[in-house]
Amino acid sequence: MGIYFRRMTIIGVGLIGGSLARVCKKKNLVGEIIGVGRTEGNLKKAKELGVIDQYYLNTKKAVNDTDLVILATPVSSFVKIINDIRPNLKKGSIVIDVGSVKLGFLIEVENLLPKGVHFVGTHPIAGTEKSGVGASFLELFQGAKCIITPTPKTNKKALDKVVELWRQTGSDVIIMDPARHDRILSAISHLPHLIAYALVNTIEDINNVEEDVLSYSAGGFRDFTRIASSSTEMWRDICLLNKNSIIDSINRFKYNLELLKNFIENEDGTGLEERFKKAKYLRDNMNK
Amino acid sequence: MGIYFRRMTIIGVGLIGGSLARVCKKKNLVGEIIGVGRTEGNLKKAKELGVIDQYYLNTKKAVNDTDLVILATPVSSFVKIINDIRPNLKKGSIVIDVGSVKLGFLIEVENLLPKGVHFVGTHPIAGTEKSGVGASFLELFQGAKCIITPTPKTNKKALDKVVELWRQTGSDVIIMDPARHDRILSAISHLPHLIAYALVNTIEDINNVEEDVLSYSAGGFRDFTRIASSSTEMWRDICLLNKNSIIDSINRFKYNLELLKNFIENEDGTGLEERFKKAKYLRDNMNK
Repeated sequence: MGIYFRRMTIIGVGLIGGSLARVCKKKNLVGEIIGVGRTEGNLKKAKELGVIDQYYLNTKKAVNDTDLVILATPVSSFVKIINDIRPNLKKGSIVIDVGSVKLGFLIEVENLLPKGVHFVGTHPIAGTEKSGVGASFLELFQGAKCIITPTPKTNKKALDKVVELWRQTGSDVIIMDPARHDRILSAISHLPHLIAYALVNTIEDINNVEEDVLSYSAGGFRDFTRIASSSTEMWRDICLLNKNSIIDSINRFKYNLELLKNFIENEDGTGLEERFKKAKYLRDNMNK
Repeated sequence: MGIYFRRMTIIGVGLIGGSLARVCKKKNLVGEIIGVGRTEGNLKKAKELGVIDQYYLNTKKAVNDTDLVILATPVSSFVKIINDIRPNLKKGSIVIDVGSVKLGFLIEVENLLPKGVHFVGTHPIAGTEKSGVGASFLELFQGAKCIITPTPKTNKKALDKVVELWRQTGSDVIIMDPARHDRILSAISHLPHLIAYALVNTIEDINNVEEDVLSYSAGGFRDFTRIASSSTEMWRDICLLNKNSIIDSINRFKYNLELLKNFIENEDGTGLEERFKKAKYLRDNMNK
């Protein structure tokens, strides 16, 4: 299926939005790409890099006469943005998001959109700890999974187009229930980020007692905490909008850490090693 | 300072022992390298790879007439090994270990060794999640820190020789009090490993409820859990021998994770983001 959008507007031209724009340009999926955001410096840079053709600081203007709107800002902003732009959206246009959470805004956004404007939730599971358009690149989505989360309200034709859009990026597209999406992501993505932030906070505490701790960290520690360099605003939003699943995941993790701690306290080497072995077995059998 | 050991015996020819042997060969720091271990297959392989010259399965025989003994087995084995080999150790010889923990065995080992045999605790902060001699390589220690933990009992000449040995591997040698070593390592190394094991255990729990969770993990998750593939026996030992510092580090971490959880529960985005920012700032300023 061939797709073409005459005009596409990216709200938030960062790592994800910028990388998607690069693919759309390269593959001629769009006629013109409009960028919009809060920071003119970043938009200027996006234009200089050829990622977008034109930019606005005013979101309403930016969506005029556009066929495809990409919400690529922190998830907490979606409802406000839709509220702002709804009078300007063209009938027949498609709005997608690329957020790590779905349930927290999906129903509200669907209800806000005018009749004839189609929303499709999407989540490319790709990214690095870096942010901004300077970090974007053409191959970001290559071989990555992209979860698309239709609801009973989702327009079938719009869904097909959006699936094709993500396929064109090289993503492996998966259709999934939004609630299941949020539970899965809370476990494999949101929880590890929270752990990384908490671990670095812990090392800072310990550094106040045991001077210069950080200078002894090796590659393992640096790999382990790399995700603590991610956008704090994005992660704040994800945590608030996926509250219940994340708290559930934290509680399960706390239980498992407590198990290990009890084995150590009781000097139960056999019990401890059993848990380690279970983890090692699973990790060894994971795709690298 | 030039150093030369006529004969060196490595007890445990794995990633660390094997890599150290490779450096000693390459730089002509030793005349002959003897390997000893539990698994003949691994020792055969070490000989085939040219990492060692000869091997024994009997530890006592392996240390006969040797000038330098490297303890490179899991830390819980050190006391037993020293008990076994003490009658065979040559006067003037040096024994070093390469373990991640010191206090748990140091005094006992020092007291067990015959007069004139010198112990020096060393810890190269290097390694990968892989084990066995097949994973060893010449450059493992290049640019890594190596902490050396003398005590009031340590022989000055032996210490100088051991410092030079590690310098020859390309390590950045640091002299440190053993208690401080154990506290620092509990924070930057032992805690992250426990967290990685507990996280993978958690994902397995969640996988029982939410089918196929693991297939949605991206690079971030795989980096984050790579260390859960480490040797379970080695990590069991480290946990038991550094019990108090590790429990202290776990408790500090639990406190920090609980803080994040409370902010999420109370939907306090500002408080949450403050903690994230503190972590991001520290991580961004860490050497990559």
